[in-house]
Amino acid sequence: MGFWKNLFSGSGSSSAPTLATAEVPVTQGVGRISKTPAPKLAQPQICFSQDREIDLYELERLCDAVGWSRRPLRKVRKAIKHSFLVISMWELQGDESRLIGFSRATSDHAFNATIWDVVVHPDFQGRGLGKALMKQIIKELRRADISNVTLFADPHVIDFYCELGFAPDPEGIKGMFWYPNSR
Amino acid sequence: MGFWKNLFSGSGSSSAPTLATAEVPVTQGVGRISKTPAPKLAQPQICFSQDREIDLYELERLCDAVGWSRRPLRKVRKAIKHSFLVISMWELQGDESRLIGFSRATSDHAFNATIWDVVVHPDFQGRGLGKALMKQIIKELRRADISNVTLFADPHVIDFYCELGFAPDPEGIKGMFWYPNSR
Ligand SMILES: CC(C)(COP(=O)(O)OP(=O)(O)OC[C@H]1O[C@@H](n2cnc3c(N)ncnc32)[C@H](O)[C@@H]1OP(=O)(O)O)[C@@H](O)C(=O)NCCC(=O)NCCS
Ligand SMILES: CC(C)(COP(=O)(O)OP(=O)(O)OC[C@H]1O[C@@H](n2cnc3c(N)ncnc32)[C@H](O)[C@@H]1OP(=O)(O)O)[C@@H](O)C(=O)NCCC(=O)NCCS
Repeated sequence: MGFWKNLFSGSGSSSAPTLATAEVPVTQGVGRISKTPAPKLAQPQICFSQDREIDLYELERLCDAVGWSRRPLRKVRKAIKHSFLVISMWELQGDESRLIGFSRATSDHAFNATIWDVVVHPDFQGRGLGKALMKQIIKELRRADISNVTLFADPHVIDFYCELGFAPDPEGIKGMFWYPNSR
Repeated sequence: MGFWKNLFSGSGSSSAPTLATAEVPVTQGVGRISKTPAPKLAQPQICFSQDREIDLYELERLCDAVGWSRRPLRKVRKAIKHSFLVISMWELQGDESRLIGFSRATSDHAFNATIWDVVVHPDFQGRGLGKALMKQIIKELRRADISNVTLFADPHVIDFYCELGFAPDPEGIKGMFWYPNSR
């Protein structure tokens, strides 16, 4: 109850929970989702939320569905708390809600942000929702005046991010990861 | 005065300012810096600090010295405040202190950290101090139980980071940057 109250009390500030009902990019190419609110919400709608009070078991199920290895919920909670931005994507139908996408970003609140954990449930992939989720997160980071939006892309999603305007290794800049005990 | 009080009141917590006097890696190969405290600090010493109350003009001079373009101090202040970890490196001699190195990291406090703005003053480069600074930041991130330590390396410093145990594009993972208006 508390969650939905928050979800629907959308304000513009980055710390307050916000709700964006399906914007144009979300509905484009998403056949079964109506562009205008249907009577009594009989038709499913896709919404974004910046609320951090996400059911961690539901998030775990979403990550399970794309084959990610499990992580301690205690650490997931801490990571969500200390991310600069958390965006979740929901399918709403009548009184039902289902978490179908997620992404978050770390940041210094000034220059740099790094996007992590971009995921869309397999049942909802290939309909433009991943793109809409990314556009939403970029929009919010730009709104916060962050100029350097970065991420680390797995090989199979490099093209997905390229389509969104991300460039790999621009001017030869390399993403690097530290390996414990390698030195 | 407030600054030095903080600097010398070192505690272990990540939010409190800490001071680590020159550890073995800092003094190795650094001819003019004594390994043991000299009487009345007559000899220069190299120290690390996690204090965030850095004189932003002094930091700007350090960044100027390596040719970085200037950034609004208001945003630098905000970035320092919201970084997970800030490490500065100082040359101390008698009552004098000089900022000679800097680095900071953003993080979700749980899984991922990204290191930004690694710099050593040209007068002090090539003596192992950049390496010591990086080791210090990695040590603190590991102490905070962060498993994924990342950075974006300019082409001319990729080898420097490789020597420290960083791998470029591990398993094909690509660092990517978003370019405004490219899409
Ligand atoms: C990557 C992911 C978020 C994409 O979500 P999605 O909803 O399927 O993507 P969209 O439908 O919005 O696709 C947008 C565009 O990217 C393309 N695309 C989607 N997935 C792609 C992929 N893996 N590789 C290349 N292009 C891809 C689509 O064809 C589409 O192109 P179009 O606009 O020309 O039609 C989703 O596949 C996912 O969750 N994968 C598993 C988790 C993962 O790998 N996350 C990334 C970790 S770095
Ligand atoms: C990069 C930088 C921090 C290195 O600091 P430094 O104090 O000169 O480095 P060190 O003396 O600790 O060098 C450690 C090792 O890296 C090597 N190294 C140093 N700079 C290097 C470089 N640019 N490329 C390749 N190797 C380098 C050294 O030869 C040394 O190797 P060794 O241990 O085998 O002797 C410093 O040159 C600097 O501030 N540069 C300008 C700012 C910058 O480019 N920052 C990085 C932005 S991504």
